[in-house]
Amino acid sequence: MNAGIISIGTELLLGEVVDTNASYLASQLPLVGLDLQTVITVPDRIDCLAEAFHQAWQRFDIVLATGGLGPTQDDLTREAIAQVLGEEITISPDLEKDLRALFAAMGRPMPSSNIKQATLIPSAQGIPNPRGTAPGWWVEKNGKIMVAMPGPPVEMQRMWEIEVMPRLHGKVHHEAVVLRTLKSIGSEADVGEKAGPVFALGNPVLGIYARPDGIHLRMIARAADDAGAATLIAQAEAKLRDALPHQIWGTDAETLEGVLGALLVARGLTLATMESCTGGLLASTVTDVPGSSAYFKGGFVSYTNELKVALGVDAHLIERHGAVSHETAKAMAEAARLHLKVDIGVAVTGVAGPDSLEGKPPGLAYIAVADEAQTQSIEGRYPPRRADVKRLVVTHTLYQLIQRLLALPPSH
Amino acid sequence: MNAGIISIGTELLLGEVVDTNASYLASQLPLVGLDLQTVITVPDRIDCLAEAFHQAWQRFDIVLATGGLGPTQDDLTREAIAQVLGEEITISPDLEKDLRALFAAMGRPMPSSNIKQATLIPSAQGIPNPRGTAPGWWVEKNGKIMVAMPGPPVEMQRMWEIEVMPRLHGKVHHEAVVLRTLKSIGSEADVGEKAGPVFALGNPVLGIYARPDGIHLRMIARAADDAGAATLIAQAEAKLRDALPHQIWGTDAETLEGVLGALLVARGLTLATMESCTGGLLASTVTDVPGSSAYFKGGFVSYTNELKVALGVDAHLIERHGAVSHETAKAMAEAARLHLKVDIGVAVTGVAGPDSLEGKPPGLAYIAVADEAQTQSIEGRYPPRRADVKRLVVTHTLYQLIQRLLALPPSH
Repeated sequence: MNAGIISIGTELLLGEVVDTNASYLASQLPLVGLDLQTVITVPDRIDCLAEAFHQAWQRFDIVLATGGLGPTQDDLTREAIAQVLGEEITISPDLEKDLRALFAAMGRPMPSSNIKQATLIPSAQGIPNPRGTAPGWWVEKNGKIMVAMPGPPVEMQRMWEIEVMPRLHGKVHHEAVVLRTLKSIGSEADVGEKAGPVFALGNPVLGIYARPDGIHLRMIARAADDAGAATLIAQAEAKLRDALPHQIWGTDAETLEGVLGALLVARGLTLATMESCTGGLLASTVTDVPGSSAYFKGGFVSYTNELKVALGVDAHLIERHGAVSHETAKAMAEAARLHLKVDIGVAVTGVAGPDSLEGKPPGLAYIAVADEAQTQSIEGRYPPRRADVKRLVVTHTLYQLIQRLLALPPSH
Repeated sequence: MNAGIISIGTELLLGEVVDTNASYLASQLPLVGLDLQTVITVPDRIDCLAEAFHQAWQRFDIVLATGGLGPTQDDLTREAIAQVLGEEITISPDLEKDLRALFAAMGRPMPSSNIKQATLIPSAQGIPNPRGTAPGWWVEKNGKIMVAMPGPPVEMQRMWEIEVMPRLHGKVHHEAVVLRTLKSIGSEADVGEKAGPVFALGNPVLGIYARPDGIHLRMIARAADDAGAATLIAQAEAKLRDALPHQIWGTDAETLEGVLGALLVARGLTLATMESCTGGLLASTVTDVPGSSAYFKGGFVSYTNELKVALGVDAHLIERHGAVSHETAKAMAEAARLHLKVDIGVAVTGVAGPDSLEGKPPGLAYIAVADEAQTQSIEGRYPPRRADVKRLVVTHTLYQLIQRLLALPPSH
């Protein structure tokens, strides 16, 4: 069955508040087998609200609304629903009793405007809201369902979890849905091209997204039961792994730095960094992982050649090849390894921009990894924007480290 | 004139990504005098996209869309617009030339699928996008305007600010609007309380937002002309600066690291860092500023006590007071200053969490600044979430450095 969400509130349309309710509900709907087709955000105006509810009621099986259930003049959700369904609003004696009891418990008189929050239409039932004064509305008519929930996230989320989701679960005849994300390195176009055959499958549906840590391939499979959906996912995942054998580094909630940390722990290895163009972002990303002090022993941000030399990089080598070179990157990785007595030293040197350096263009970078056996360096070219260079170089450095570690046996 | 926004992407409807583009654009539209009536979020499906564009094109004077301009099969914004307007998509030789030049500059061959990003319809003109491969579309037909922008926020925001907003400004008849943001340090409640009298003014409208670099006070003034609006802003700004004399550190697009860099350059001073709990994020933030190599000489991520001692911190001092203490923070700042022969050494030591350290709780941190004259340290307590601790400690460290520099005369 399909669904639409209506987010209500002028503040959402001024950009002052980010609508977390919509993304929360959006993440929940696949779990009850609902196919979310649209989120529509409207201001606290009766004409806009009525138009949105009218269209949603025509197009979707299930309509979920948040906001506009408060006691003030600009809270118009109830009025809009009544107008669209052609029903009359009346005070519910039960809801009024509950509301007066709530105010009594707070030791406050009930302002007269709050009586709005004790109203219903014939097709609606009240949904309890122990976290606030606004009950929700559960509306059923002509085989369709409309649910209005309050805007404050703590009230809405409790109402969804305890009251609305279980009830929808029972109403919606639904198929099983399984989600799976593979995370990869590469350009969006390149990954998209290689993933072409999986696009063609249709089920699972494949989505491709460029993210700060690479290209994500998200699959959504639907089947009669969980096992069926999981089988579809497994088959598509195998195809993607075949098509991208050297580019997939993780799944679902995994991060590059988390995968790296787990590999270092599994192999009992330690790490140190020496970086120039990334300016500390490499060390910072490695240490985003709780417990990273078990394997990360320290880092140097060698922003000058003097510091590189003081840390053990040969001055003649920098003079001969430049600070931005395979040779200097390798020497930096080896210096980090020796200086901090770790198993693996990793180094980055490059041109973050916007200006050139040593006649080399912004976006050029060298990444080197040194371990007991060898030192290797790769050259990379990145879009020449400072923030992008830093982020992409860190992403590729973490990926290089993971590749090197995967080639080592788990028991070092 | 009224406007609608269409946010495109299945990921937005799965709750995996919060739609910051819509709230950014929503906050911008009042500045060009547009009345935003609806934001509609749709998945990467041609039927849903065509329906959304069809309705928006009928209802609104201006339609703004973000997303769906990538090179893959699920990027369908161009196709949907062409379908709704009944026009045919063709490759633009000019756009193709630009796109091939961009790939050549990155030293990469252009995947064939990217040619989608060089297409137009007769009613559309390309909008330049120097931050990515997807140009936007500016569509004008029958007195209405439709603008399609790319989904990545850094690409979209630049395109909006440099290309789209000025052009819309010329098209939309509107009153003068002037915007001004003051950036401050403090709690949202405290800043909000002190800013109370400016809230009461009504024009400018004041909005208060907690952001990663502190509390932002955003003013929007409206008047018949620019001068009138600017006068209203100046009067309100004077009131805010009176109310928050020690808390405002910058305005508008200024960043803490940018303000710090400008102060260091003006005073001819150099800087070095030694950090533990922030793991390199302090150095990385300082080096986010282009040209920071003029004053930033290097940094140490001293994640172990051994490294702190090797860099010049007294081992007995760490033993006596602990690694997380005023004494160790001060010794680290002095060691960074001496080791890298700079004017100012800054150090951070703390417990990033989630576990305690030396019996000290997550969220406890010490920030020390050492210059020629003195070394000072402050203690801070932060919400004990690893990412928050790192970010907030860096924010407060940059703020401490700015305060110290402001106390020094510009000509050192």
